Amino acid sequence: MTSIPSPFPLAAASPLEAALGLHRVLEPRGVLPQAAWRLDPSPSIAVDEVLVRVDRLNLDAASYRQLREAHGGDADKIRAAVLDIVATRGKMQNPVTGSGGMLTGTVAEVGPESPLGLRPGQRIATLVSLTLTPLVIADSLARWDGRSEQVPCDGHAVLFARSIAAVLPDDLSPELALAVMDVCGAPALTQRIVRESAAAGPAAGPVVAILGAAGKSGSLSAAAARAAGAAKIIGVVPHEAEAQLLRGAGALVDAIVIADARDPVGVAAAVERAGGPADVTVVCVDAPGCEGGAILSTAQGGTVIFFSMATSFSAAALGAEGMAADVRMLVGNGYVPGHADLALELIRTNPAVRALFERRIAE
Amino acid sequence: MTSIPSPFPLAAASPLEAALGLHRVLEPRGVLPQAAWRLDPSPSIAVDEVLVRVDRLNLDAASYRQLREAHGGDADKIRAAVLDIVATRGKMQNPVTGSGGMLTGTVAEVGPESPLGLRPGQRIATLVSLTLTPLVIADSLARWDGRSEQVPCDGHAVLFARSIAAVLPDDLSPELALAVMDVCGAPALTQRIVRESAAAGPAAGPVVAILGAAGKSGSLSAAAARAAGAAKIIGVVPHEAEAQLLRGAGALVDAIVIADARDPVGVAAAVERAGGPADVTVVCVDAPGCEGGAILSTAQGGTVIFFSMATSFSAAALGAEGMAADVRMLVGNGYVPGHADLALELIRTNPAVRALFERRIAE
Repeated sequence: MTSIPSPFPLAAASPLEAALGLHRVLEPRGVLPQAAWRLDPSPSIAVDEVLVRVDRLNLDAASYRQLREAHGGDADKIRAAVLDIVATRGKMQNPVTGSGGMLTGTVAEVGPESPLGLRPGQRIATLVSLTLTPLVIADSLARWDGRSEQVPCDGHAVLFARSIAAVLPDDLSPELALAVMDVCGAPALTQRIVRESAAAGPAAGPVVAILGAAGKSGSLSAAAARAAGAAKIIGVVPHEAEAQLLRGAGALVDAIVIADARDPVGVAAAVERAGGPADVTVVCVDAPGCEGGAILSTAQGGTVIFFSMATSFSAAALGAEGMAADVRMLVGNGYVPGHADLALELIRTNPAVRALFERRIAE
Repeated sequence: MTSIPSPFPLAAASPLEAALGLHRVLEPRGVLPQAAWRLDPSPSIAVDEVLVRVDRLNLDAASYRQLREAHGGDADKIRAAVLDIVATRGKMQNPVTGSGGMLTGTVAEVGPESPLGLRPGQRIATLVSLTLTPLVIADSLARWDGRSEQVPCDGHAVLFARSIAAVLPDDLSPELALAVMDVCGAPALTQRIVRESAAAGPAAGPVVAILGAAGKSGSLSAAAARAAGAAKIIGVVPHEAEAQLLRGAGALVDAIVIADARDPVGVAAAVERAGGPADVTVVCVDAPGCEGGAILSTAQGGTVIFFSMATSFSAAALGAEGMAADVRMLVGNGYVPGHADLALELIRTNPAVRALFERRIAE
């Protein structure tokens, strides 16, 4: 047995620390950029960084919803709140929800040791969260009406060596590509889990329930579940208008259930009558309180994937225990290798999902 | 494709609602007991309920720590805070941490339709959280000195049909059995995941890192990982005193690392030098901010199991994305069938872990 003490703090950042952006953390020192209260968004880049001229932010749905509700939908107040967060923190991380979003822009400068393979002039989207991306807004958000999570803006941002960015495709509008890439972790992880479940379970394939199936991550996850071998997909939506959207998406799901995902017993009973309980339940509802419903809609031995940033860790852990539910619960990791390509391919090959996205963007 | 509307609210509780205890929820109506602000702890039981005369509460570590820190260690204030929570909410759920704990007592009355198989007079421990257990404290906690999470008390509690309770074993002291059963979900899930990893991975077996390895859930999880075929177990502890405890536990772990689990880069570097990164990382540290260190200590394709109630869902999800880490992240479910029996068996057959527990209890 060996005892290995932790290293002494380094005067200069190690390569790993630099790659993760620790040199940009102002407060508190030593934590990762995502956990930091305040980052240094200076446009002077290190050798392994990339400077991006930002043209659009896409706020996380839970963050935008919180801001809109906190300010009663008042556009000036919502704009002021976002400006204040970015000016104070050097990044767009909503202090209430803890979540951020993503951005698009043009590559302005590439450090000689950046491993991201980007060139100046390329239009890109970041696939790492705004919660850890140094950001300055230079135009007071004058072009944003505050009525949508898509925020046109002028400013700059910094990417680290371990950041992830994707060049925007030529064949899709930037709005569509951005909306797709924003949620691309969900279909990628759903595909992986449904495939595993299909390989391990009954020959017919798993039953998949998707809470929030008419939304962006929900509809893409449904398409991914289908491609991965789901036997039956149950789409859960909160009201008739969302059900209509989903009906318009053809065979994306096999059954549509209208239920309040925050009502555990109600949603579980409705999913059961539609062919459940599910072997895999995917939570794409950006509202708090959906943990119990997801757990109760899932068969013993099944899996719940939580993609909503409104998920409460303790509500999930204690809820499953409290209901004697032997379910595997996954924190939806936004990074799965190849996730952007998979999501863009699902949009290209699935006209119904594409139409649904285009309607959402036009809203 | 079929559309199935949600059911109309029922005037009387359905059997599922009754089994889950929804009839005990006073505020807000319709949510599960764990999500409720306030429960009805009346001692008049329904046909499928069990009434328990409570003799001891075992507060969740994160909850007790928060109470102790919020009140500067003042015993009278800590006692008053617990009494106030239970009187206000009808259950012991810390409003800050959201967590509870468990209890022991004697079965006082069993409803004729209870499926739990209990008889009046049996001494039991509840294996469902206090966060959903109707509770009344009758003795003002006069016998509790406020200096430990073990709270002697007199009062009553109610178990539902879907609650889980275990009869206390004859061959172990109640304090030891309670402490073991309080954390029995951790070794059970660790065993399952390490077994899966051993079956799928290299012949030598997986490398397992345990953050908080000298604690109760950590040491039991280490014993479970060993039994499940771990090739190497790396125990991470915060300081030399904990390292001493772990060294005293013999071959429980293969390497001891002293590192601050809240320092992601520091802990990852130390784990790597001890033989990491880990295929399976188990987080048993009851302090916030350990998500990044756990993720960064885990190999690409590996698994992190979060057992700490101080885990932040968004910090885990966004942290993994922000570090481009393709790791599977599990919410530690406190319920795995057979979990209490497994944990008690690990204690019986593992004198080193038993000694470690007995030292912790005596502290």
